[in-house]
Amino acid sequence: MSLDILIEKIVEKQNPTVVGLDPKLDFVPGFIKQKFFFKHGETLKGAAKAIYYFNKKIIDEIADLVPAIKPQSAYYEMYGYEGVKTLYKTIEYAKSKGLYVIVDGKRNDIGATMEAYTNAYLGTTSVNSNVVEAFGADSLTVNGYLGTDGISPLIKACNEYDKSIFVLVKTSNKSSGELQDLIIGDKSVYNTMGDMCEKWGSECMGKYGYSAVGAVVGATYPEQLEEMRKALPHTFFLVPGYGAQGGGAEGVAKAFDAKGLGAIVNSSRAVMCAYQKEGYSEVDFAQAARDEVIRMKEDITSYIPAISL
Amino acid sequence: MSLDILIEKIVEKQNPTVVGLDPKLDFVPGFIKQKFFFKHGETLKGAAKAIYYFNKKIIDEIADLVPAIKPQSAYYEMYGYEGVKTLYKTIEYAKSKGLYVIVDGKRNDIGATMEAYTNAYLGTTSVNSNVVEAFGADSLTVNGYLGTDGISPLIKACNEYDKSIFVLVKTSNKSSGELQDLIIGDKSVYNTMGDMCEKWGSECMGKYGYSAVGAVVGATYPEQLEEMRKALPHTFFLVPGYGAQGGGAEGVAKAFDAKGLGAIVNSSRAVMCAYQKEGYSEVDFAQAARDEVIRMKEDITSYIPAISL
Repeated sequence: MSLDILIEKIVEKQNPTVVGLDPKLDFVPGFIKQKFFFKHGETLKGAAKAIYYFNKKIIDEIADLVPAIKPQSAYYEMYGYEGVKTLYKTIEYAKSKGLYVIVDGKRNDIGATMEAYTNAYLGTTSVNSNVVEAFGADSLTVNGYLGTDGISPLIKACNEYDKSIFVLVKTSNKSSGELQDLIIGDKSVYNTMGDMCEKWGSECMGKYGYSAVGAVVGATYPEQLEEMRKALPHTFFLVPGYGAQGGGAEGVAKAFDAKGLGAIVNSSRAVMCAYQKEGYSEVDFAQAARDEVIRMKEDITSYIPAISL
Repeated sequence: MSLDILIEKIVEKQNPTVVGLDPKLDFVPGFIKQKFFFKHGETLKGAAKAIYYFNKKIIDEIADLVPAIKPQSAYYEMYGYEGVKTLYKTIEYAKSKGLYVIVDGKRNDIGATMEAYTNAYLGTTSVNSNVVEAFGADSLTVNGYLGTDGISPLIKACNEYDKSIFVLVKTSNKSSGELQDLIIGDKSVYNTMGDMCEKWGSECMGKYGYSAVGAVVGATYPEQLEEMRKALPHTFFLVPGYGAQGGGAEGVAKAFDAKGLGAIVNSSRAVMCAYQKEGYSEVDFAQAARDEVIRMKEDITSYIPAISL
């Protein structure tokens, strides 16, 4: 199972964190933008090329430290098809550096259409006799609101291509409770979604006790992280909201099991914009990102058990 | 409000239907594929170009009949960034023909990231001093699982740019009930989501009694269509599941109000693949699509009140 691959990379690097590559153009240092705008004008293409350059340099600097990156699709789609091309190239480059790539797309649809999304991100696309990977990611975040037949094509691909998914369970935003915290019978909507993850995961169990169906559970709700870790023993967590959104390492630690596994914590802006802190200048952006990745790793691992299989 | 624009187009064309452009390569006639594979090889680019040609010819043939098209993003993403370029060009072409374009992307995320999706599809993207439309659609389908702060950026764009959204409420697939039909207090999850649509919509009301926040309610559940029409008087419905998925015109009619408004019914495969029916050959694909659009219009309008403002 694909989450086994991620787990092995986490153990190898002794680092349960993932860097979110959500490259708003505002985050890209001015000297990089200048270079690409000079060549391509202030166009979507110029922006997309600047972002790719920025991503690549950050990947170069952090690839030996982190097991994974998580590009957020929205920040590429925002730059049109040129931006989506940068998403593709970023995935390709990160994989060439041995990183596990989680596309944060929160995709969802009914069965037949979900197959198309599955093909796009985790599987293959047939063009007559030619079979190609449209994006070639390792994992995709998805929204389970449509129920099992929106998830089945993904599970099939997890088994067939050794991939994984992360289903939104409890998100990190302020209003996540409006629907997710409401009570159905004796449990919340997010608990119900969590139970569905365990059920879906039973069809694609890995060898380290976790299935290929992970869950997104926000760092901004530590008490729920703790509750969910107990309730969903086979579900690996992707934890957004650390750092910039306010979730601390002590709270985040509740997402982990006794072996220091069971979760991977995301940080995006704090890494990408690390160079904006005192003591750095624009040209240090990649080194600043590396420093922040080390700081985050030390912060989180200081609160969790030693990481081992 | 943007839904007013759609409503006016529905009244003008006396047609409350939308053609879903979900162009799997299998749906594209062989002679078109041959032409583009000859030029570009059996590549994602060749596929994307064939799909654009197919879409364009269908749009040419139906633009005088229907108010809107609904490209399903998954079927473009499946062909990588080249496919996404075809999505962009399809939107652009359909708009040049006066059609209202609903991108079926079911996007969802937390506030800051949802802003990026909003910019991508409904708003504008700034590239330094240059402000451009990355996709330039009129409307986007979205998933409301994350609550209000995932919807707020969209509502702002609806007001600022005269756009609309359709929130998933009750989807047309078989397992939609697993979560959507569960009971929270005295109402279902989908009723709760519907109420949220009414609330969100109160911030962007149009002049014909409907807000810019529509709801996706599947044709495969007619009794729920009827119930929702009464419960959500200001929420316009996008109704998938007619035809191929088994929803009939009589059931679909329950989504409409006394003025023959309040809903737009989607058909995708039945239109795109109409040429596969007896009496047509591949080269008739556009004419066959037109014939099916006329049949669908007559079928549905025969069950609903006369359409008027």
